[in-house]
Amino acid sequence: MRTNRTFRAAAVGLGMLLTVAARASAQGDPLPSWNDGAAKQGIVTFVQAATTPGSASFIPAAERIATFDQDGTLWVEHPMYAQLVFCLDRVPALVKAKPELAGKEPFKTVMSGDRAAMAKLTMKDIETIAMATLTGMTLDEFNAAVTRWMAQARDPRWKKHYNELAYQPMLELLAYLRANGFKTYIVTGGGQDFVRTYAEATYGIPPEQVVGSAGVITYGYDKAGKPFFMKEPKLLLNDDHAGKPESIHLMIGRRPVAAFGNSTGDQQMLEYTKTGSGLRLAMLVLHDDGVREYAYGPAQGLPDTKLGTFPQSLYDEAVKSGWIVISMKNDWKRIFAWEP
Amino acid sequence: MRTNRTFRAAAVGLGMLLTVAARASAQGDPLPSWNDGAAKQGIVTFVQAATTPGSASFIPAAERIATFDQDGTLWVEHPMYAQLVFCLDRVPALVKAKPELAGKEPFKTVMSGDRAAMAKLTMKDIETIAMATLTGMTLDEFNAAVTRWMAQARDPRWKKHYNELAYQPMLELLAYLRANGFKTYIVTGGGQDFVRTYAEATYGIPPEQVVGSAGVITYGYDKAGKPFFMKEPKLLLNDDHAGKPESIHLMIGRRPVAAFGNSTGDQQMLEYTKTGSGLRLAMLVLHDDGVREYAYGPAQGLPDTKLGTFPQSLYDEAVKSGWIVISMKNDWKRIFAWEP
Repeated sequence: MRTNRTFRAAAVGLGMLLTVAARASAQGDPLPSWNDGAAKQGIVTFVQAATTPGSASFIPAAERIATFDQDGTLWVEHPMYAQLVFCLDRVPALVKAKPELAGKEPFKTVMSGDRAAMAKLTMKDIETIAMATLTGMTLDEFNAAVTRWMAQARDPRWKKHYNELAYQPMLELLAYLRANGFKTYIVTGGGQDFVRTYAEATYGIPPEQVVGSAGVITYGYDKAGKPFFMKEPKLLLNDDHAGKPESIHLMIGRRPVAAFGNSTGDQQMLEYTKTGSGLRLAMLVLHDDGVREYAYGPAQGLPDTKLGTFPQSLYDEAVKSGWIVISMKNDWKRIFAWEP
Repeated sequence: MRTNRTFRAAAVGLGMLLTVAARASAQGDPLPSWNDGAAKQGIVTFVQAATTPGSASFIPAAERIATFDQDGTLWVEHPMYAQLVFCLDRVPALVKAKPELAGKEPFKTVMSGDRAAMAKLTMKDIETIAMATLTGMTLDEFNAAVTRWMAQARDPRWKKHYNELAYQPMLELLAYLRANGFKTYIVTGGGQDFVRTYAEATYGIPPEQVVGSAGVITYGYDKAGKPFFMKEPKLLLNDDHAGKPESIHLMIGRRPVAAFGNSTGDQQMLEYTKTGSGLRLAMLVLHDDGVREYAYGPAQGLPDTKLGTFPQSLYDEAVKSGWIVISMKNDWKRIFAWEP
């Protein structure tokens, strides 16, 4: 026990030293996990130009809106979106509560545990599972379920909690932008209620700055007359592709000056951002690091996983429109905070 | 010309003196347009309790969300909502562009200029007019039209621009809350796009803090390939009654700690706010000043104009639930900034 305690004390001490070292380094360089290169240079040049009073490209503080896709941009999305894992993990409890679903597809396949069969589920199957596991409960029940799941679930590769799969370079970028007066928003195809439960702790982004896909919620009263929200099985906002700029208008009402994505689902958001007048920054994360993370997206001949699709056409638009492509392999010194 | 210039210089000088005087007075009293009484006391007590560190009722800065209805709460709504006047004012141009509407109701009645007939328009007629005059154009066209109209239109009684009909005591309340770390939101049954065009200049409330009724907008491209938004004739969010807390959840994602309204349309918002745990403030503006503004709402035997209805049942709920009723007549020293 003593040995263990001594080891722990030493580990804590080492951890503190490392934290102090990281801070000291960060004072000189706000983006210590980024290698020098076009991506890092593009960010720093943009922020300096935007915040230099009197410069032609100065952006008033109120207009410093930066929007970030989440899955594949702020954290790992491969081999499966965290929210989809959450939905699948909820199926057993759902089937227990509604035994009539046990023999019905797609629940039967999920309950079988047959990975090969599950990989063949169609988009429609996934929507059915999502509706059944994300709605039909009160908002409080849903929030509690997500919070429990996030504290307990671990990803299949690194065995980390999902919020530990946030990309360290992007966390530094969020902090750097905020330190320079930018308001950072998540604009995700994922569920707004889902992401809001952990966005503040994970990314420093408060609930009112999380824009996402959203179902209808209805305001009602419990038996004691106390109001509550019910999550209804009906989609209100599909925050993907053109839905992203549409939701940005609905929820923010300003055109962002900087936007970050990684797939065709983010194309319209980057386009909308970049075609505004004045100084703009648009960046795309390219998953080209099969060793430290994953390599996918047909751009540059990487495999197409259909997740966070990054086809050649998107790459071409990025080049044509002056969007900066972030190579995870070349631009990121480290990917996760917990890397050795 | 010289006389004119001298007069202007004197006026500017006087204006500056008045501003300085107002500031000096405000340093002692953040709510100089409020008479001493239960309403003012309720506000000051709430803000002090919410912001005293270590007190049991302390509210962390991030949770200091205050929501305000607009029409009848922040500015005059009688005899007609400003946005409805805007819609009616647009009918002649609409009929010119689409001559086939000239002979059709309800446009025919509006074009007749017959006030008595117009007063009899049904809610359905008004919806038809609103859809025809608020949608079917790009967002940029709409914003420009509202801005032009606000700069030119004047109300029938005081001949003031509509944004000059903001209540001075409420402007002081907004500023007082913001000075104490509260984030002030408008949550209006009126159109979100409409209110966003002037909310910052009128109330100091930025677009991302305006929540309102919203139509579907679609993202498209012009002939040059530049993206734009189209306002479609389809309602997405009806931000009234239960729609208010629902939209608050959608757009803010936090329960307000303070809410302000004046009608049954605000009832659920106040209820949702007040039933949260910890310190809360809910207030209702009662239009009981027929001399300086208008007196209406059946509570306390005032006439029912159907605008901003304040029935006895709402008054009873306010008393029962500890909501504070603001009497315009007794609680407000002056109502408008330009009053002599």
